[in-house]
Amino acid sequence: MPGLLWPGDERADRLFSDATVLAALLRVETAWLQALVTAGIAPAGARQELTGLLTPRDVHALALQGEASGNPVIPALGLLRERLEPRNPVAATWVHRGLTSQDVLDTALVLCARDTARRVVSDLDRQVAALGSLADRHRDDLMAGRTLTQHAVPITFGLKAAQWLQGVLDARDDLRRVSRRMPVQLGGAAGTLAATAELLALSGSTAALDSVVSDAARILGLASVPSWHTSRAPFTRYADTLVQATDAWGRIANDVLLLNRPELGELAEDTVEGRGGSSTMPQKANPVLSVLIRRAALTGPGLAAQLHLAAAAAVDERPDGSWHTEWSALAELSRHTVTAGSQTSELLDGLHVDTGRMASVVKNRTSALLAEQRSIGGLFDTQATDFDPSHYLGATGAVIDQILARARAGQEHS
Amino acid sequence: MPGLLWPGDERADRLFSDATVLAALLRVETAWLQALVTAGIAPAGARQELTGLLTPRDVHALALQGEASGNPVIPALGLLRERLEPRNPVAATWVHRGLTSQDVLDTALVLCARDTARRVVSDLDRQVAALGSLADRHRDDLMAGRTLTQHAVPITFGLKAAQWLQGVLDARDDLRRVSRRMPVQLGGAAGTLAATAELLALSGSTAALDSVVSDAARILGLASVPSWHTSRAPFTRYADTLVQATDAWGRIANDVLLLNRPELGELAEDTVEGRGGSSTMPQKANPVLSVLIRRAALTGPGLAAQLHLAAAAAVDERPDGSWHTEWSALAELSRHTVTAGSQTSELLDGLHVDTGRMASVVKNRTSALLAEQRSIGGLFDTQATDFDPSHYLGATGAVIDQILARARAGQEHS
Amino acid sequence: MPGLLWPGDERADRLFSDATVLAALLRVETAWLQALVTAGIAPAGARQELTGLLTPRDVHALALQGEASGNPVIPALGLLRERLEPRNPVAATWVHRGLTSQDVLDTALVLCARDTARRVVSDLDRQVAALGSLADRHRDDLMAGRTLTQHAVPITFGLKAAQWLQGVLDARDDLRRVSRRMPVQLGGAAGTLAATAELLALSGSTAALDSVVSDAARILGLASVPSWHTSRAPFTRYADTLVQATDAWGRIANDVLLLNRPELGELAEDTVEGRGGSSTMPQKANPVLSVLIRRAALTGPGLAAQLHLAAAAAVDERPDGSWHTEWSALAELSRHTVTAGSQTSELLDGLHVDTGRMASVVKNRTSALLAEQRSIGGLFDTQATDFDPSHYLGATGAVIDQILARARAGQEHS
Amino acid sequence: MPGLLWPGDERADRLFSDATVLAALLRVETAWLQALVTAGIAPAGARQELTGLLTPRDVHALALQGEASGNPVIPALGLLRERLEPRNPVAATWVHRGLTSQDVLDTALVLCARDTARRVVSDLDRQVAALGSLADRHRDDLMAGRTLTQHAVPITFGLKAAQWLQGVLDARDDLRRVSRRMPVQLGGAAGTLAATAELLALSGSTAALDSVVSDAARILGLASVPSWHTSRAPFTRYADTLVQATDAWGRIANDVLLLNRPELGELAEDTVEGRGGSSTMPQKANPVLSVLIRRAALTGPGLAAQLHLAAAAAVDERPDGSWHTEWSALAELSRHTVTAGSQTSELLDGLHVDTGRMASVVKNRTSALLAEQRSIGGLFDTQATDFDPSHYLGATGAVIDQILARARAGQEHS
Repeated sequence: MPGLLWPGDERADRLFSDATVLAALLRVETAWLQALVTAGIAPAGARQELTGLLTPRDVHALALQGEASGNPVIPALGLLRERLEPRNPVAATWVHRGLTSQDVLDTALVLCARDTARRVVSDLDRQVAALGSLADRHRDDLMAGRTLTQHAVPITFGLKAAQWLQGVLDARDDLRRVSRRMPVQLGGAAGTLAATAELLALSGSTAALDSVVSDAARILGLASVPSWHTSRAPFTRYADTLVQATDAWGRIANDVLLLNRPELGELAEDTVEGRGGSSTMPQKANPVLSVLIRRAALTGPGLAAQLHLAAAAAVDERPDGSWHTEWSALAELSRHTVTAGSQTSELLDGLHVDTGRMASVVKNRTSALLAEQRSIGGLFDTQATDFDPSHYLGATGAVIDQILARARAGQEHS
Repeated sequence: MPGLLWPGDERADRLFSDATVLAALLRVETAWLQALVTAGIAPAGARQELTGLLTPRDVHALALQGEASGNPVIPALGLLRERLEPRNPVAATWVHRGLTSQDVLDTALVLCARDTARRVVSDLDRQVAALGSLADRHRDDLMAGRTLTQHAVPITFGLKAAQWLQGVLDARDDLRRVSRRMPVQLGGAAGTLAATAELLALSGSTAALDSVVSDAARILGLASVPSWHTSRAPFTRYADTLVQATDAWGRIANDVLLLNRPELGELAEDTVEGRGGSSTMPQKANPVLSVLIRRAALTGPGLAAQLHLAAAAAVDERPDGSWHTEWSALAELSRHTVTAGSQTSELLDGLHVDTGRMASVVKNRTSALLAEQRSIGGLFDTQATDFDPSHYLGATGAVIDQILARARAGQEHS
Repeated sequence: MPGLLWPGDERADRLFSDATVLAALLRVETAWLQALVTAGIAPAGARQELTGLLTPRDVHALALQGEASGNPVIPALGLLRERLEPRNPVAATWVHRGLTSQDVLDTALVLCARDTARRVVSDLDRQVAALGSLADRHRDDLMAGRTLTQHAVPITFGLKAAQWLQGVLDARDDLRRVSRRMPVQLGGAAGTLAATAELLALSGSTAALDSVVSDAARILGLASVPSWHTSRAPFTRYADTLVQATDAWGRIANDVLLLNRPELGELAEDTVEGRGGSSTMPQKANPVLSVLIRRAALTGPGLAAQLHLAAAAAVDERPDGSWHTEWSALAELSRHTVTAGSQTSELLDGLHVDTGRMASVVKNRTSALLAEQRSIGGLFDTQATDFDPSHYLGATGAVIDQILARARAGQEHS
Repeated sequence: MPGLLWPGDERADRLFSDATVLAALLRVETAWLQALVTAGIAPAGARQELTGLLTPRDVHALALQGEASGNPVIPALGLLRERLEPRNPVAATWVHRGLTSQDVLDTALVLCARDTARRVVSDLDRQVAALGSLADRHRDDLMAGRTLTQHAVPITFGLKAAQWLQGVLDARDDLRRVSRRMPVQLGGAAGTLAATAELLALSGSTAALDSVVSDAARILGLASVPSWHTSRAPFTRYADTLVQATDAWGRIANDVLLLNRPELGELAEDTVEGRGGSSTMPQKANPVLSVLIRRAALTGPGLAAQLHLAAAAAVDERPDGSWHTEWSALAELSRHTVTAGSQTSELLDGLHVDTGRMASVVKNRTSALLAEQRSIGGLFDTQATDFDPSHYLGATGAVIDQILARARAGQEHS
């Protein structure tokens, strides 16, 4: 799965790989089959664990066949029925009854998304810890605050870390909330559940229609909601929240890329044997993690926009092309986000902070950096001739503590 | 403000107009000045309502001067001080003390965004009512369900309306939540609040630093949070949620555009004298509202992506260009969303539903539309020779009721 | 027209302003009326210059009326006929005959685009001169080459300027070509020219159908091509080429923003009284031009993508919403590009180059910067103990000359 | 390579696959090694064909190693040298001398892009033929022209095909031009070619510096231009042109998707055994090709915008993240375009045109469709009581012939 053209991709393991999507399709069909049996629609003999009936070795053939039907569920179902038939013909008859291919693919992608969200939240948690520690440790370490590329007023590195943390907390809050309400998509051919209702009626079952859906949802650990074939908020919310995370990381990476430049030298990535070299310049130590994180931050917005565009172009009871754009966008955005999240955790855990160099910039630039302070002094007829950092440290410390308190509160409620 | 090239723009009134932004800048400076006085930093005589000191007549000159400083706050402040000086020189001395231009512009844009959000929520409320009524009224009106452009199975128009409603409810939920926690931006030159701390110390005030911020926030009706100069989630969340709304409306407009075609004729926009004509074809009645709503849906995702890109490109304590891309993106996305929201409300309130034509399609196409039902009947050795809609209506009715219940619950908690 | 939220916008003068678009609509109608007379369709008395019949004072009312018809041409035409009637009733009868509103609006926007392209080309020309001079003047001024944020090998500032120039030349080549073949849009209601054919037949004229179109095109100075109501390459090509320009300028601005940082200090924007100040920090001198140029570079790609999306979503003989997204996207992208182009010209004309500081970095870092050279020396058993810049200068000089030659060749063929 | 989540992907064969990119890297290194020998820099014994030294079996390991260096060239080069060493130690010493990893990766991607462009041009050629034939065959087959979803005036299907053709010709013109001037990227560590100059000097060669580059370019069949490490027009132009193609195809697909709806039924995709089925509705025949083409059209603009953003964010002599976003964007856009191009060719070759149904719409709607004609008749005191299509056919025929002539001219000059 890791590809030559997106270095670091192996950090996303098998999330949203074709094999993982295929396994998720089987989990959905298994859960639904189980729900049909529980509801008394399908006979008890139809109960069947489907996992393993289609394997990664089938992916290539199914991918080739997917074009004819426009999605991979139809050939997967054909092969599944073929393999079920000899071992459990009743299950072969009942599998997928009441569903449509979009139900199965959407719900499978939701399962992949939920696993992705958990991975990302776990990296965000790790970053909260790392940043909390950086913010606390460096709360009194002065450095130049820079605005519009120029020196502004002194800040502390602790404050910078706390503000990085703020972005990470924003992303964690939203991703946690989104990941808790990820829904199944179980609507049948046109979102009516009519086939399932028909099955209930013909089978003489007394089960309620929505209990079939909620039973399958329970098995999968997802929320039970009306079908959203053409209301794509579950996917756009998820995507927007991932991009909030890559936004937060991109901003951190941008700062590291800047502050690690030889002329600034205030931050550095951890030195890892073999990392950051050049094909021709032996001395180079490139900030590779930050470069690759920035890459993800620059591509996230476009991928989320693609999902919104799919939502905006939806029509009928199932759309004619926009739905098809979602699958690879979800997979890419998810994998890129997991990779960047893992890289950001590693970056922060190993970040080198040169407080001496930071301090010397403030010292050498006091005159310019204190211009604001002097102009304030003028209001009270005092003179800020020497730099007295106590008010700065008190002020930035208060901001840091506010953000650290939020981080702790989030930890407790997780 | 309404422009030739975005017809319908006047529906957004003065939201995010230059004059409105300028007035919001003054509200922020007034609130801060008040908070300085309350904290005992500035003398009581500095209390001053600034509203009206800069007026729409100043916009042109300020816009011209904005380039030199890169943002409109600096010239606005210059002119404000000039006009304050003769009438309240104390206020002229104290206005803006402790703030930076980004504080004022960000908070002013947040004020505009909150007003926008309220307008959009009020249109979403109106649409919830209209759609709830359509869903309920047409719960038994069969029509063809269409997937991938082809007839699939019967649905009801009530179900279609309920699913439109689902998208509207998703947007309303998120926009309500986002609009309730819109924060001030009050951080000072580099987000440290150091100048305010300095002012507190020199003035001998015993007020707490964060009470100054929270006081200003209270006056403005916004949340008090640490500064987010380079953590842009407040703006990206707002933008993402507006796009959730345009996504939901786009999907409705797409359905109307399709179903109003002469060959389908199942839906029509209300006839309004003078609307929908052609410059050369006297017979034309173009579905103008839907066309213009679709326009907004196609442009929303790109504008929100622009805001995410700004977030992802942030660097330093205030960024070198990405911040500057946000202002017009926020204004455009906001105005376009308000316009589309108002158009969607009008579209839904006046929507013509030709249930006879819907029914005749189902009747004439029964054979194809019931193919799924027949295949299910085969499972139980029954024959679905005649179309019995009872199970369809029961199933779709249950889905409709689930969505209507959600709409009611949302109404109660608003 | 200049707005608070896009500082610098006044550099685009009246290009694509509502008043300019309205005037362009009249130019198109005038040219067509003239062509109808020339072809013998309309009587000689219908010849009428329409300029001035609608004025900037009409914009507001027309903008308000535009929603009902979905575009501004229809109300403009109504008002035009109303005003023509008393002064030339024959012209009032014949104006617009054979056209559709999209013809008029598209062609008017093409006229605006052509004027924009000329302005941008003229700025590109100015930049070619400035960059050619910088490249030549600094061909021997060594500075650190930087890759992936780290020092790589020495380059010269002349080479950097030459490579900036290369991007500018790429943009100029493409924009010149695109601007030379900008076409009219004259197709009638559905691109058939059928109404014009009918008019020709009924009037007994012997003129050829395509001569009417090419006559109008000639008057407007545009190319005569079949109608492209739903084949939007003329607009996407134009937009892509503008973005090539903002890409080239963004890259220059990024370099200036970096190299003007206090820690690097190799480049600086020209000092202009009152420019680059802060609302609170008296010492600040922000690189405002570069910040605003970078802003345009970050927003161009999204606007061009919007135009491509409109092209990709086209349907029927005239589309149902995607066309409507183009107008403001064209106007914004055009104005932003003109503004950024003018700012880039000014930036380059006044750029301060600190060759001493550049040289000292190379001198101080020789060891690291020459690591590649030493590794090459090893191949020949030589030692590059002292830095001999002669080969660097020869090599970079050759690259510079190649690019300068291309600039000169372009100048000759313009 | 074909993936579950982008059905039809196998149509792109191995274009831009990891194995293909790896092979292209070797072609670049081979050509450069050859040029070094020819220039007298490297000894004759260094001449070595490198093809096959790295194989698809190496891709996985190289992908894993790519993260440490941030790009795949560095580990590929390490493995290459390791394998060369025992078989040609001189070549192992000389391979890659003078280059940097970006040179090799950029040029390799250009080679892949050129192969892609050829494939796309060949599909465009096939479509020109198919559309020319459709336009010609159906020049007199009347159908309803539709604008803004409503019936407008009659057109012919030949005209619609000709206007589809116009978009295809626009794309072909531009892609041909772009594909003819695809350049090598051979600049060395910072675009100076300094290492190569050093090698020339130390080796005592009398070859000119630019002859080394142009020799390598000649071997690869690419243009020789100064390095463009941070001037990305070669890639943005390529991407823009591919999107012009997907725009043109998207518009065709949109029309087919509409006109194949059961209520319209004027066009249909060819029936292919097993294609277009549903997982639950036996009767469904979904227009799968058009759906998948539309998918590509909706995603192209975002991918090209990503490449422009990379160009706009370039900085230094090699950028810190934006370059890294280009690789997968190029690969995806290329593969998607090839797939969609092949699908469009197949769609057009097999398109079913129901001229009877088209004619009956015109017949039944004559009254509305002729409203424009009647209004024209009024000008001459004539009555268009019966529909006389002769002027329509003459007019549309003239437009068709104009477009067909352009297609023929393009054919001759290809």
